[in-house]
Amino acid sequence: MGESYGRWTLGDDEHLMPLITSANIACGGHAGDPMVMLRTVRLAKHYGVAVGAHPSYPDLQGFGRRDLSMHPDEVRALILYQLGALAGVAKAEGAHLVHVKPHGALYNRACADRALAEAVAQAVYLFSREVTLFGLPSSKLEEAARERGMPFCAEGFVDRAYEPNGQLRDRKHPDSLYIDAPRAAEQALSLVSGTVPAWDGSQVALSVGTLCVHGDGPAALPIAQAVREALGRHGIMVAHPGALPS
Amino acid sequence: MGESYGRWTLGDDEHLMPLITSANIACGGHAGDPMVMLRTVRLAKHYGVAVGAHPSYPDLQGFGRRDLSMHPDEVRALILYQLGALAGVAKAEGAHLVHVKPHGALYNRACADRALAEAVAQAVYLFSREVTLFGLPSSKLEEAARERGMPFCAEGFVDRAYEPNGQLRDRKHPDSLYIDAPRAAEQALSLVSGTVPAWDGSQVALSVGTLCVHGDGPAALPIAQAVREALGRHGIMVAHPGALPS
Amino acid sequence: MGESYGRWTLGDDEHLMPLITSANIACGGHAGDPMVMLRTVRLAKHYGVAVGAHPSYPDLQGFGRRDLSMHPDEVRALILYQLGALAGVAKAEGAHLVHVKPHGALYNRACADRALAEAVAQAVYLFSREVTLFGLPSSKLEEAARERGMPFCAEGFVDRAYEPNGQLRDRKHPDSLYIDAPRAAEQALSLVSGTVPAWDGSQVALSVGTLCVHGDGPAALPIAQAVREALGRHGIMVAHPGALPS
Amino acid sequence: MGESYGRWTLGDDEHLMPLITSANIACGGHAGDPMVMLRTVRLAKHYGVAVGAHPSYPDLQGFGRRDLSMHPDEVRALILYQLGALAGVAKAEGAHLVHVKPHGALYNRACADRALAEAVAQAVYLFSREVTLFGLPSSKLEEAARERGMPFCAEGFVDRAYEPNGQLRDRKHPDSLYIDAPRAAEQALSLVSGTVPAWDGSQVALSVGTLCVHGDGPAALPIAQAVREALGRHGIMVAHPGALPS
Repeated sequence: MGESYGRWTLGDDEHLMPLITSANIACGGHAGDPMVMLRTVRLAKHYGVAVGAHPSYPDLQGFGRRDLSMHPDEVRALILYQLGALAGVAKAEGAHLVHVKPHGALYNRACADRALAEAVAQAVYLFSREVTLFGLPSSKLEEAARERGMPFCAEGFVDRAYEPNGQLRDRKHPDSLYIDAPRAAEQALSLVSGTVPAWDGSQVALSVGTLCVHGDGPAALPIAQAVREALGRHGIMVAHPGALPS
Repeated sequence: MGESYGRWTLGDDEHLMPLITSANIACGGHAGDPMVMLRTVRLAKHYGVAVGAHPSYPDLQGFGRRDLSMHPDEVRALILYQLGALAGVAKAEGAHLVHVKPHGALYNRACADRALAEAVAQAVYLFSREVTLFGLPSSKLEEAARERGMPFCAEGFVDRAYEPNGQLRDRKHPDSLYIDAPRAAEQALSLVSGTVPAWDGSQVALSVGTLCVHGDGPAALPIAQAVREALGRHGIMVAHPGALPS
Repeated sequence: MGESYGRWTLGDDEHLMPLITSANIACGGHAGDPMVMLRTVRLAKHYGVAVGAHPSYPDLQGFGRRDLSMHPDEVRALILYQLGALAGVAKAEGAHLVHVKPHGALYNRACADRALAEAVAQAVYLFSREVTLFGLPSSKLEEAARERGMPFCAEGFVDRAYEPNGQLRDRKHPDSLYIDAPRAAEQALSLVSGTVPAWDGSQVALSVGTLCVHGDGPAALPIAQAVREALGRHGIMVAHPGALPS
Repeated sequence: MGESYGRWTLGDDEHLMPLITSANIACGGHAGDPMVMLRTVRLAKHYGVAVGAHPSYPDLQGFGRRDLSMHPDEVRALILYQLGALAGVAKAEGAHLVHVKPHGALYNRACADRALAEAVAQAVYLFSREVTLFGLPSSKLEEAARERGMPFCAEGFVDRAYEPNGQLRDRKHPDSLYIDAPRAAEQALSLVSGTVPAWDGSQVALSVGTLCVHGDGPAALPIAQAVREALGRHGIMVAHPGALPS
């Protein structure tokens, strides 16, 4: 959410916000200028949605989806910078950070590279011991968070294809992104059940606590609606991490 | 302080830091990437120097010294962003913000334009009611802070010439910047006394609580040394705002 | 045209391009990364549209619409940089620059400030003596170009309200931008006739050689269609400056 | 050369320029704003030094030394953009581009990755068939240039250690960068002779036509002086590629 920038608008945040419980809000790295961040926090607060940070590599031109070789110390400082920035803006609306989900290439690398995972986890931990880190289940990010004893929530993607090993299928493959709402809703139910079909048909066991819908996708809104409807139909309640009894 | 950026180094922070009591640290707007910010906070903490934010227009190329027409609402969000960012980075060193001093063109405009002064003061106040705002004495910034009942500290400049009306002489004039250390030391003593000579020789009454030395100037170090020596010689103690009894 | 950037799309260039004869293409200052510029030049060439540069202040966040105090020497270098950049990218498509139209706040200031107008005109002249500069009729930009004896084309706006003195009405006024296509078409015909009604109803004499439609406006496409249709209906031919006999 | 940016100065270009024959000038990607570029071109012209472009990834914060995963098509457009930009600025001084040397991480990757090498070579070729591309001898960059039949000049580094396979030793190793002027001068003579010792003492055969001194290194000036003195002592003349009979 909040992936607009200056004159450019991306995503239909106003209609998406009422359908979600946790918002990953861009912090100026790949998108999101201070005004966009402020409006997005306000919107989240209006709908009682948890405010989360969506930090990324400093790469507006590449929308944070290009890999950038940064030293883990640089990443740690970068995350603290972006978390602080969003928390600062959120003060104007009396809101605070509930969770953190790294964005794009930083997310992918932090899930696969232990040193980077450690940098991310440490930054979040230094920022606040009560903020929940989101990441792929069984990833290096989960490892780093678990060892540190900090809150972690495994994440499933309703609109992305999986590899048989549980990784996300690379965006360079045309079949990596789902734009069909019923299919995304089906994947949401699979994720809740703990087993999801990979792109090749094999079954992957994944235990997740939060479901991600990409707000910048062309079908974000129908997908979010279909997912919520499907979950509701099956009596599955949705809440943000901070709302759950610990 | 902290006005380096990536491969570029500016200012001799290591030698300046022991000579000051309050550090205005760049927050990424005109200078200061996250790693530079982190190192600067660490250095400030090492010498017991108060960590302050030095927010500015988003203009690396112009070092925040070019006027930029931003709406007060944009400025408010920008200041919250940069204050939060520095506060986030400072968490890695267990430090927190003590004061805020806007930088360059933003400082000048906020001192002269009430709507912008209001935006800056409100941002600082929203961020924390205990953070002290620095600004020119009798400026719009002081007005905005006083009316809000928030901590304010009037600032004098040891290395800048004054206009007869108490404004800073514009940097476009070659005589606006002092690089002569004894002259700066003399101006420091004048500022403490409450009356300072303007560039044309007339006397200006100025009541200030903090003295500013520009860290990026060519003579920053000898000036800071001369000022400390002169103050010490006259038995004048120096402390940061948070260290004073309220 | 070409005002997208990275992940962000702005304007319906594909449908607008066949309706125009001169494209003002963003050069990376307020919009337009190298790939966007390349695609836009290719599209212009495909439809036989003249490739023109749309240089601006370096301000992606403000889309080049915020005034920025740059020295004329800086502006001269900036314009040469952006013209060269677009010309470089255009080489991949075998295209070259036909005209230059400054963007946003730079356009407004260059039309009103002689030193800045001079900097812009000189940059275009240094770049090529055959490139036509676009600007408001009777502006400082026209003055600077005429005195230098370089090609100049006065520009009228079909989607912007005019002040009685022939200036554009500031965008801060809600009635400054037309989104009604028939009204824009009517203004196009007025501009061709040499007299256009200002926002207050008074008549302004304006002699223009090119008509501007803003590609980022919400009604850009219907406006361009209505203008072309109205001009055609009145037997008015449209061609880019380079296509005219000199 | 020209690796300053705004308020930040890097390298002693004024004293280095008279010692070299080809200047690789930053184009805004990793350093170099338009004014810095203009001054650097002017300085090069004053000393009769060939003006060359030093294009890089768009990464000011990382000084173009961090790897960034860009598609070859993006790199091609990026190079055209930066070459054009420098050529545009150079028009103010009546200068034109003689050679191109990619910078930092882009150079390293283009020397090792054929698709990227192809993108770089094609961009330079599209820009001008008379501009010489600089690169490591026997690299993918050389391959791409040779197959295209475009001018290429193999480059040796006087201030960097080599791997036994002729690659540059990674900057992460403390012994990768020479700051000892006599050692650099010795390496210059080795490079001219066609055989250079690698960091482990083994001998590497390298046939180069140009010698590179990094202008941002702490010992750039003494190294350049020592190299020129050593070459002169051995009767070795130096000239830029365009000055040689073809």
